[in-house]
Formats: sequence, structure tokens, C-alpha cells
Amino acid sequence: MKPLAKIQTLLRRKGADALLVTQPENRRYLSGYTATDLTIAESSGVLLVPDRGAPLLLTDSRYQLQAEKEAAGFEVLLLRNSLLATLKKVLRRLGIRRLIFESHYLLHAAALKLIGLGQQQGIEMIPRSGIIEKLRTRKSGAEIERIQRSVLLNEAVFQEVYAKLKPGQTEREVALAIEATMMRKGAEAPAFPTIVAAGPNAALPHAVPTERAINKGETIIIDMGLRLDGYCSDMTRTVVLGAPDPKALEIIRLVRRAQLAALKAIKAGISARDADRAAREVIAAAGYGKNFGHGLGHGVGLAVHESPSLNRKRRNKLQPGMVVTVEPGIYLPGWGGVRLENMIVVKEQGCTILNRDATFLDI
Amino acid sequence: MKPLAKIQTLLRRKGADALLVTQPENRRYLSGYTATDLTIAESSGVLLVPDRGAPLLLTDSRYQLQAEKEAAGFEVLLLRNSLLATLKKVLRRLGIRRLIFESHYLLHAAALKLIGLGQQQGIEMIPRSGIIEKLRTRKSGAEIERIQRSVLLNEAVFQEVYAKLKPGQTEREVALAIEATMMRKGAEAPAFPTIVAAGPNAALPHAVPTERAINKGETIIIDMGLRLDGYCSDMTRTVVLGAPDPKALEIIRLVRRAQLAALKAIKAGISARDADRAAREVIAAAGYGKNFGHGLGHGVGLAVHESPSLNRKRRNKLQPGMVVTVEPGIYLPGWGGVRLENMIVVKEQGCTILNRDATFLDI
Repeated sequence: MKPLAKIQTLLRRKGADALLVTQPENRRYLSGYTATDLTIAESSGVLLVPDRGAPLLLTDSRYQLQAEKEAAGFEVLLLRNSLLATLKKVLRRLGIRRLIFESHYLLHAAALKLIGLGQQQGIEMIPRSGIIEKLRTRKSGAEIERIQRSVLLNEAVFQEVYAKLKPGQTEREVALAIEATMMRKGAEAPAFPTIVAAGPNAALPHAVPTERAINKGETIIIDMGLRLDGYCSDMTRTVVLGAPDPKALEIIRLVRRAQLAALKAIKAGISARDADRAAREVIAAAGYGKNFGHGLGHGVGLAVHESPSLNRKRRNKLQPGMVVTVEPGIYLPGWGGVRLENMIVVKEQGCTILNRDATFLDI
Repeated sequence: MKPLAKIQTLLRRKGADALLVTQPENRRYLSGYTATDLTIAESSGVLLVPDRGAPLLLTDSRYQLQAEKEAAGFEVLLLRNSLLATLKKVLRRLGIRRLIFESHYLLHAAALKLIGLGQQQGIEMIPRSGIIEKLRTRKSGAEIERIQRSVLLNEAVFQEVYAKLKPGQTEREVALAIEATMMRKGAEAPAFPTIVAAGPNAALPHAVPTERAINKGETIIIDMGLRLDGYCSDMTRTVVLGAPDPKALEIIRLVRRAQLAALKAIKAGISARDADRAAREVIAAAGYGKNFGHGLGHGVGLAVHESPSLNRKRRNKLQPGMVVTVEPGIYLPGWGGVRLENMIVVKEQGCTILNRDATFLDI
């Protein structure tokens, strides 16, 4: 069943007449409409999905052509004044009495207006979070193909830039080269701001690239991802120019062992925290438990960070078709850090690794 | 008075004990903390500004060093678990009874949790929108200097790329060259996705650059801006390679006349709609009124689109120190479009144009 049909079935089961979709990736997932939002306050459109019949896409004249071309099966309605004024008319026309809205992706001020409209019109406005996101966690074969292409393009970019990596280049220069190469090779956009962090800067999991020049011997964390045909990739490599010092070798090999332990453990039915634990135990046994301060991974799809989260607290079980990152790391203040990140598809038996690049993984 | 002191005075006047700041530009404006948010769901910190005494910045360990370094005068509090758990403790410690939150930049689901905490703790949670944004509309001398530098860097980027512009380059290639040049010259980031739209594509005010090659003779709209030291620039030039055809010449000259009329009319005290009308009348008188479908301009500062809006509906009066764009345009479906955009500072007497670039303006 297609996502749209699944949502309509769900609405009927919940006794709701319609769902208002404001979250941009959810909008793209259900409609195929590829426009993005500059900010949450500047939407390029919302979906109104009734429990049966044709869904609608409400947008303004700037996006009309694109919406009509891309959102097959959707009636495109042009907003003349405010979204609320148009919604009022459409909800009345469709006879909607119970409308679910995305509480996790609507500003409070906008929700108050929507709820006010409901009170005025006798429509129950029902806040819900994560309905479509939950559907998005298990990828279809077509989605996995797109993600695979995104992963491979991301690797091609990495390999091109890595081949030219030299001591003296700044972190920022390398990050810019990566993002420019992504765009030249046809990515829609970087999936997130590229991280290049060398030496002591690599001790910060979310380092911002600086003007510091890269030196021989130190670990260099490169965390990069791109969006292709809507779908994201996310990969981290830790590399060293010249000969790594013994400490770097030790930590890289340890993180790789932790990653392999997680890859071995992951299959449908394992809980998110057990997957996390498989890697964490390897790192803790070597005495670095406190230096792995983040979770093992996260879902990737239309968004670069989506459900499920793989960390110590999550008891939810992994399901076939989920695409997640496996990214253990060790961060030593003053020295630096190492993180290795691949993307996988969860299978009934085990998992499939989407990455092919082996740069510096098994040294 | 500094913005922070102004806000504390305002809080005391309103009888509120504190303000919770979630909007990223507002956070930077009050604290100097430069971190940005990947999405509204992934905040790099919030401010808690009590009506007197030291303000706080709540963030997580990833941002601790940066927050402590940048947010002078702020107590940096580390979030161990959720923001809500930490807020609960701090609000109690400070004895807050009436807290204003930013209803226009907090997700509905998050606001419900905050309001729930208030009910549990006997704290009145008060939704408000735009308090700090209003303060931000009038720029200080130091802010105008930063904006001026942003404008001049943006022009340097434009001139470098324009000098190499050739028929056969695609819109996307040119847009990517612009953004790469911005970054190479030291911008923090593009302020918005660069628009390069040539020929019929230029008939869309918000065109996305395509793989279409640019031809001689057609109008090419280049709308670009960057962020430097936090502050945005936003400029549009319409250029033609080779000799413009008579139609292009006519429309470019008309749009320039409309722009000059607005520049002549703008000074402190004029209403936003009268400023808009000054340009619109010139275009309407030439018979193209229906082809100028957007407003005359918008405020620019830490955000590229901020208050005030200059359009037909706004009655608010422009004030000295406001920085706004003046960007009339004419769009002819099937043919193309022309838009010219400069940034200005509103003065008691007239206005100061921040742009120096005259490329193709007066042909």
C-alpha cells in the first residue's frame, strides 16, 4: 500500500476526517512535491489529506507550476490571502469535523490560530506528533535504492577530496571543497553542515570547521552527507596524513571493533539500546566508556536525522527496512577524536551495509 | 541602552519575571552567541532572561565552550537531560511566577509541555510574538557597520562572478559559483539559496536555478545575499549578455525608475505602504501594474527577511535606523523578468543606500 493510502486508512481507524501536513519531509513523502522551506515561518505549502478521496496541496502562486507538476493526484489550491482563510473555505467544503494537525511541526502561535478557527467553525483540532514519521522509518525498496545512490555519490565526493588532502589545508577549506564537490556532482544540497575537525578540534563531536591547518599524524574527522533525489546520506571517516601515532592507531582500531560488533549484532527485533550496547561494551572494556558521549546512531531518509534513535535509553525494536547509521566514537579532550560512521539497512537476518568506501577503516 | 537592558525594562513594565528566548536570531542579538540551529527541532540553546540580574544560556555539552566564550555576561547552564527538566529547576531557583515565551518560535508540542510545567509549578506561561523582533528593526551604528560590510562583500562576489559570466553557462553553475565565491571570501554562509534565473525562468520571482543555459540578449536575474559576522545582505541585479533587446531595455529602465522613485520617497515617518506605492505607481502608469506581484521590500539584519515588510497592506511608519530592501520587479510570463534590489538605511531626512555596485543599473 502507498503511504497516502496507509495514512487514509489510519485516519478512518482513528475516526479523524483529515490530516494537515506541515512538516516538509512528510509533505514530500506523501505528495512527491520537492519544494523545501527556507524556515518554518516561510512554508512552501501544506497538505490536507482527507480520510478518503483526493488530497489537496495548498500553496501560493510562486510554487503553483512546481506543485502541479510534482504532486500527482493532488489538487493544488492557491492561497490568495492567508493559509487560514483558505483552510476555512476548504474545511467547510469538505465537511471536515475532526482534523489532526502536526503538533511537532507547527508553531505555537500558528496552532493557536488554527484552534481558534476550529472553535469558530465547530471543528475539533487534534494535535498529534510523529504519525507520518513512524511510517517513514521503514523504507520501501525504491527508497532504499535512492538512499543507496545518495550514499555512493557521497563516497565519490569523499574520495575525490581525500585524494587531494594535504597538511596545511585548513579545516574550513576542506569542508568547502567537499560541499562544492557535492554540488558539482549533482547533489541537491549538503544534508548538514560538513564537519572537518583535526587534532584537538576532533575532540568535539559537533565541531565547526575552523581556520586551523591540518597537520601530519593527527586524526581528522570528516563527517559529511548530501541530499540526492530527496534522500540523505551521512558518513564519517577518520583519517590521518602520514603515519598515525600509536595512540591514533589504537583508538581507530578500537572504534572500528566497536562498529563491527554493532554491525554483527543488528538485525530485526534487536532493541535500539541493545544495538547501542553492542558497540559501547567494546569501548567500555578498553577503558574509554566515558569518551563515547553520544548514541550509536539514528535513522536516515528524507531527513538526515529521523527515527529511530539508537541510544542507551531506547527500548523500541529495530524493524526490517529501517535505515540507520552506526557511528561509535571516542573523544579525548586535548588530544582529539575518532568516529566511524556507516549506513545500514536492517534485515530480518542481520543487516546490509550501504557503504562501499573502506578508506582508513581497517588499518 | 543595550538590547538586554531594554528587554529587562520591558519585562518589568509588563509585570513578567522572565523571557524565554528560543528564536535563533533573537538569541544571537541578546547574547552574542553565534551558534545556529540545524532545524527548529535541534536547538543549540535557549536564553532565560529574568527581569533583573544575570541572564542564562541553557545548552548542551556540545556547545559549552562556544557558549561560555561568546555569551559575555550570561551564566551558561548545561542541559543534562531535557530542556524542560533543567528549566523546572532554574525557574524554581529564580522564583519565576510569570514567564513570557516566544509563541512564534516554539513548536506547538513543545509549548504544550512548557504550559504543562507551568500548571504543575504554578507558573503562568505567557505566549507572545515579536517582542525582540520589534527591537531588532532599528539598527544601532555598530549593526549598520556590519550590514555595510556584508553588503560590500556580497557586491565583491557578484562582480567577480559577473566578470566571468558567459552564454552557455547554466543557471545552476552560476549560482554555485556565487555561493562558492561567497565562502572563499569569508562569508559565514549564503543568506538564502541564490537565485539565477534567465529568459523565461526569470518570470518567476522565486525561481530555483535550473540546468538551462544562459543566452545572449535575455534578462538574467541574479538575487544573492550572504551572512557576515551574523548580518545579512540581499541584492538583486538584472543583467543581459550582449545587447539587450528593446523590450529588455524598456523594462529594466522602467524598474530602475520605480526604484529611484521609492528611494526618493523613503524617509522616517513614511508608511510602509506609501513607500511601496511610490514604486508601484511608476510601474502601473506604464501598464505593468499586474506584473509587479510582490511587495517593495523587507527588513534585513540578523535575518534576511525580518520586520518591517514594505507592501500595499502595511500602515506602520518607517523609523530611523531601519534597514530595508527596495526591490521592485516586473515579471512577464513566457518572456522573463527584471528585478532590481538595493538595501538602504532609513534616515530622518531621506535614506542612505548601502550598495555601491552599479552594474547594469543605469543603462
